[in-house]
Amino acid sequence: MKFQLEHADGQSGARAGILQTDHGEIHTPIFMPVGTAGSVKAVHQRELKEDIGAEIILGNTYHLYLRPGIGLLEKAGGLHRFNGWHRPILTDSGGYQVYSLGANRKITEHGVTFKSHIDGSTHIFTPENVIDVQRSIGGDIIMAFDECTPYPCDYGYAKDSMGLTHRWLTRCINRMNSTEPVHGYGQVLFPIVQGSVYKDLREQSAAFIAAQEQPGNAIGGLSVGEPPEDMYSMTDLVCRILPSDKPRYLMGVGTPENILECIALGVDMFDCVMPTRNARNGMLFTTSGIINIRNEKWKDDLSPIDAELGGYSSGLHSKAYLRHLIINKEILGAQIASLHNLTFYLWLVREARKRIFDGSFATWKPLMVRRVSTRL
Amino acid sequence: MKFQLEHADGQSGARAGILQTDHGEIHTPIFMPVGTAGSVKAVHQRELKEDIGAEIILGNTYHLYLRPGIGLLEKAGGLHRFNGWHRPILTDSGGYQVYSLGANRKITEHGVTFKSHIDGSTHIFTPENVIDVQRSIGGDIIMAFDECTPYPCDYGYAKDSMGLTHRWLTRCINRMNSTEPVHGYGQVLFPIVQGSVYKDLREQSAAFIAAQEQPGNAIGGLSVGEPPEDMYSMTDLVCRILPSDKPRYLMGVGTPENILECIALGVDMFDCVMPTRNARNGMLFTTSGIINIRNEKWKDDLSPIDAELGGYSSGLHSKAYLRHLIINKEILGAQIASLHNLTFYLWLVREARKRIFDGSFATWKPLMVRRVSTRL
Repeated sequence: MKFQLEHADGQSGARAGILQTDHGEIHTPIFMPVGTAGSVKAVHQRELKEDIGAEIILGNTYHLYLRPGIGLLEKAGGLHRFNGWHRPILTDSGGYQVYSLGANRKITEHGVTFKSHIDGSTHIFTPENVIDVQRSIGGDIIMAFDECTPYPCDYGYAKDSMGLTHRWLTRCINRMNSTEPVHGYGQVLFPIVQGSVYKDLREQSAAFIAAQEQPGNAIGGLSVGEPPEDMYSMTDLVCRILPSDKPRYLMGVGTPENILECIALGVDMFDCVMPTRNARNGMLFTTSGIINIRNEKWKDDLSPIDAELGGYSSGLHSKAYLRHLIINKEILGAQIASLHNLTFYLWLVREARKRIFDGSFATWKPLMVRRVSTRL
Repeated sequence: MKFQLEHADGQSGARAGILQTDHGEIHTPIFMPVGTAGSVKAVHQRELKEDIGAEIILGNTYHLYLRPGIGLLEKAGGLHRFNGWHRPILTDSGGYQVYSLGANRKITEHGVTFKSHIDGSTHIFTPENVIDVQRSIGGDIIMAFDECTPYPCDYGYAKDSMGLTHRWLTRCINRMNSTEPVHGYGQVLFPIVQGSVYKDLREQSAAFIAAQEQPGNAIGGLSVGEPPEDMYSMTDLVCRILPSDKPRYLMGVGTPENILECIALGVDMFDCVMPTRNARNGMLFTTSGIINIRNEKWKDDLSPIDAELGGYSSGLHSKAYLRHLIINKEILGAQIASLHNLTFYLWLVREARKRIFDGSFATWKPLMVRRVSTRL
């Protein structure tokens, strides 16, 4: 994998670049739709490619490991062949999902023992087997196994947890270096900065992560309930330490506003379930602001979902039709809303990229933040 | 609307024709996907047109009347404009849905009083207002208001019910003749033959319906639980009485086998929720037979869902991937399975049409019936 920094904005930390993988190029800043169990919910792979213009999607190690299981994914020749998405894939390490299991998991130095949410069966994830599993799934970018620090979290816990994440990282890197890709194309590891909302821990962690000299770096443990100012200040701090010639991935972020603010701080890659999950509940992100399509006020509104965005879902269908489908719990409602929201998210990062190139990012960003965070 | 009978099979009752509407041509025999509340469940309108090759879809008066309501449909300029499907639409009269409400409806000579399944509110459907509602929805073909006779049903009830359906038909025709289309294109009425499984009643009803000289005729009250032999014998009987120069629509039928058998008896039009409803439960209709994709046997089967059928959903995705999605309750599973099943249904009627033209229908049909009804 190669990352080429094409342009850095003079008035902010924003950057534009190209990430080259064996499954094609990714133009940054980029948003990555989440395909938890091998499917971006309610969206066809063809739509991801042709309508949304997604360049990379996520898969979740925890979910894919449980179902369909590693044996089948290996037999299929990896996730790309299994789900028919032939552009790049990033797999998370399962750290976040395992942390979400709460009482159903136990963390030790060795790894995490957890119970499947499907059948209650017991499993263990270690830094080593999580690398092996991700080799088998076949992500182009694979994530280090970390402990995603909860929020709020006292200083002592955050510090110990960060130490564990760093020790696990060393084991992940050793495993990466002693194994080969199993599907015939390259795979790279991104380590993850932790440290909760503590400045000195984030600094320590970012320095440790940077020193590993991996092809890209991630920031984890944010967007877990902390105030946005903390998210921004930690991201700012970390971006200043992480090397500028490598892509920076802010995990699990966020709203359109969060994404614009963090692009300005130097983040290149984002993922979040928000555009698809909120779509299923009728929350739409548009070029004019946020719409709760369930509200009575949209009942008779026969204007397109988002005329400025255009495209199949946003330009063809009216707000009134989409509202009707969502209120009626029609699957097509989830489909159209998900397709729309992802189209908007990819439009947003492409717009940001254009503005970075033409030098208008710093003036455009605050105006766009105001627009996209307006409640209509 | 004009119906042109292009070719009649010499060895069976099968026919090929073209039905011309203001929204385009329908090539018969045809299967009509069901779009209950203005959406064919889990299928985009674009897919219906481009992948499935649907030429006409159904809408349900009962559902559309309750939601989104007639006011909004009128404001939108009819259902075509509301849902973005610009090919022909047929609306059923609500008779079947109202009959399904059981204890929540009361039938009198005047009409049917029923309680909404959504909020329990009380409504009345009469032959007159059901025509008005369908005028507003804007179907190209609108159905007479009938009582769908339950099964089993004693002779006395079936006879009285048929009489009511006939009297209601006269009122429907009067209403049709005294009103105009509201959306600027033509609408025609199809009356419905009833009579349960009683030969003499079906004969009487078919003769009565034929005498109305409407542009097309329908057969109702079948596929409601009676043995297939009864469905076939009643359909055969009725097709021999209904005029051959008008399209014949067998309502709510059925399996691929049912459709082939009834094409052979002279039916031109079919609708059924089976391909979409069963898809959501993991039952696939394929060119080799019926698959329950939830079965363990498909777990590792990486072959296409239906290689012979090909196309986006059937040719790209494997059985193992679709099984994984359905087992995981991923919406994409319902999407792919529905797209596949409808693609198969439309393929089946197009194949039948080809065979009618080339004279091989009578020899092809029993072979195909065996294939498509095999449980794999």
